[in-house]
Amino acid sequence: MNDTAFSARLRGPVRIVGTGLLGASIGLALRAQGVEVTLADASPSALALAIDYGAGRESSRGDAPAIVVVCVPPDVVADTIEQELARFPDAVVTDVASVKLQPLHELIARGVNLTNYIGSHPLAGRERGGAISARADIFYGRPWVICRDEDTPAWALSLVENLALDLGSTPIEMTPEEHDRSVALVSHVPQVMASLLAARLIDAPETAVALAGQGIRDTTRIASSDPALWLQILRANADPVVDVLTHLRADLDTVIAALTSTESDGSATPGTRRAIADAIAAGNAGVARLPGKHGQNRRFEAITVMVDDKPGTLGRLLTDLGEIGVNMEDLRLEHSPGAQIGFAEIAVVPEVKQRAIEDLVARGWRIAGL
Amino acid sequence: MNDTAFSARLRGPVRIVGTGLLGASIGLALRAQGVEVTLADASPSALALAIDYGAGRESSRGDAPAIVVVCVPPDVVADTIEQELARFPDAVVTDVASVKLQPLHELIARGVNLTNYIGSHPLAGRERGGAISARADIFYGRPWVICRDEDTPAWALSLVENLALDLGSTPIEMTPEEHDRSVALVSHVPQVMASLLAARLIDAPETAVALAGQGIRDTTRIASSDPALWLQILRANADPVVDVLTHLRADLDTVIAALTSTESDGSATPGTRRAIADAIAAGNAGVARLPGKHGQNRRFEAITVMVDDKPGTLGRLLTDLGEIGVNMEDLRLEHSPGAQIGFAEIAVVPEVKQRAIEDLVARGWRIAGL
Repeated sequence: MNDTAFSARLRGPVRIVGTGLLGASIGLALRAQGVEVTLADASPSALALAIDYGAGRESSRGDAPAIVVVCVPPDVVADTIEQELARFPDAVVTDVASVKLQPLHELIARGVNLTNYIGSHPLAGRERGGAISARADIFYGRPWVICRDEDTPAWALSLVENLALDLGSTPIEMTPEEHDRSVALVSHVPQVMASLLAARLIDAPETAVALAGQGIRDTTRIASSDPALWLQILRANADPVVDVLTHLRADLDTVIAALTSTESDGSATPGTRRAIADAIAAGNAGVARLPGKHGQNRRFEAITVMVDDKPGTLGRLLTDLGEIGVNMEDLRLEHSPGAQIGFAEIAVVPEVKQRAIEDLVARGWRIAGL
Repeated sequence: MNDTAFSARLRGPVRIVGTGLLGASIGLALRAQGVEVTLADASPSALALAIDYGAGRESSRGDAPAIVVVCVPPDVVADTIEQELARFPDAVVTDVASVKLQPLHELIARGVNLTNYIGSHPLAGRERGGAISARADIFYGRPWVICRDEDTPAWALSLVENLALDLGSTPIEMTPEEHDRSVALVSHVPQVMASLLAARLIDAPETAVALAGQGIRDTTRIASSDPALWLQILRANADPVVDVLTHLRADLDTVIAALTSTESDGSATPGTRRAIADAIAAGNAGVARLPGKHGQNRRFEAITVMVDDKPGTLGRLLTDLGEIGVNMEDLRLEHSPGAQIGFAEIAVVPEVKQRAIEDLVARGWRIAGL
């Protein structure tokens, strides 16, 4: 892999307030491009750690940042934005909090002049937090929502856009309301449902857990997220989250009612079968809206190859794919509990599927379903 | 990959009734081991298709099967079991339906002699159905639940166990009640929740869908399942499913209440913060109970490697892993919407992580987080 350092669009200094996962990651990414970064954190030890990691230098009295990036926990975002705007009146101040409306309302209520403030939110993160998990590349290829308004000066907008672009993100403009409703739907509510579903496993007998397959694994993977952080996110975006959860509960009520109501002879009450089938069919329609890889809606076709559990087998397979000139759009490994074999499901564009299968078989691979 | 044909434990003929995905897959697997398989299906065209695929021959009047495997849709399982028991009194009759108690109750209510019946359920399947999706290998490494009772003759149990073993499954004994409660928890309820969550996306604006990341993808993947089939499964296992859903709804109500109740000054009502954090923490505890690969509870460590989107890149990576002697326990590709780059997260046992990273870096790979 090449390690090209592109020259940054941004000129520093960039001031980062809050040196957790996001702040330290932004610092690392900008430092790698030679941008001057100053760091501040309420916790001296967190600050020292981020400096040790190479995320920037400690801020000092004479700093004159062009842009301030507020990366503090959700519950102190508004306070910090207000302080930074007051302290650096010539800088644009942005933040990376995952909820945009609540801090804005708080700042407006306090009468803060927000001309130089632009809320933003990189859709990036990890299940682990802190500077210790920081990576310069977590923003790469991810959307970065920017919430300008009619008063936003072009120079200020440009600085925030350049920050996103320098970090490899794709800037997307939204209103704070749009943003918060969107993340409630695609991020916050899935987190709640994964947590509630996973919580049902706490008291499950060993034998039940032993039957777990890929379905429950996938639906509960994000349930391992940090409770303290999610408490703040969910509270800060409570209204849009509750709105989606309330719809979801109504749908859940419908399913429960349909599964419990039977006629006196034990047969299904008229209409209840349809209600259940409709709920599953609605899920079909909803999941079909998720974009594929690279933001495309294009559908890929799967080739399932049997792979044994020895070092290098999967590597040989993918090398073979490379040699026959087939680009893999996605790869999913299916676990086989108790077995030393698995399946590699490879997604390819439909046009190459047949040829890929023939070439793989010619190279000795077993394709499932043939 | 080797293509060794083991000799089968089972002696035929095996009669398969219902030639959809599971019936045809069982037929293919047994035929590959030289076992005589006869096929029956209410639909002549489905039967002809399965025969064309090589799943077995058409049944005929003189057949004397040792074992009958009922693979019909849930709503005709009990009828079919009753017919097969009457028609082949010397055979053991099993079924592969994903719900065990409802057909059993129905058969008991009809006074059917069930000595030669053993319910079973291979935890295997695909998102696509029909003989056209059949694969001899879908049972490989999966649990196969077998529900014997005190009257089950040893010879009959042995035949069903041998069927599971010949197909590469791991037989697990459970009572029908245990089975149904277990699959409600680890399969049926996750399906309902994935469907309800995905359904929320139907009316989502394009901009919201554009922010979708891996979290919503994982939590809704199984929402693409077949509504007609799931209607039957959910109705047949309604009581255990409703039991879990009702607990889940109570937890959901707690979260909604905690997110909506605020004091007159807008601050959180005492206790509500804790209720939200507890819900997320309970998810942490629940998801930790899911076994890892190969049924182990062992934890792996992740190495995240940057890979570009060219044919062969991932293959080169995995070949390198093979050459340095590192076994990959799992592999997850992270999509980067809009970007031509991604991350390969490789799970390895903790003991080899450091050496693997050093060897990969020496071979020119960029490891995220270094």
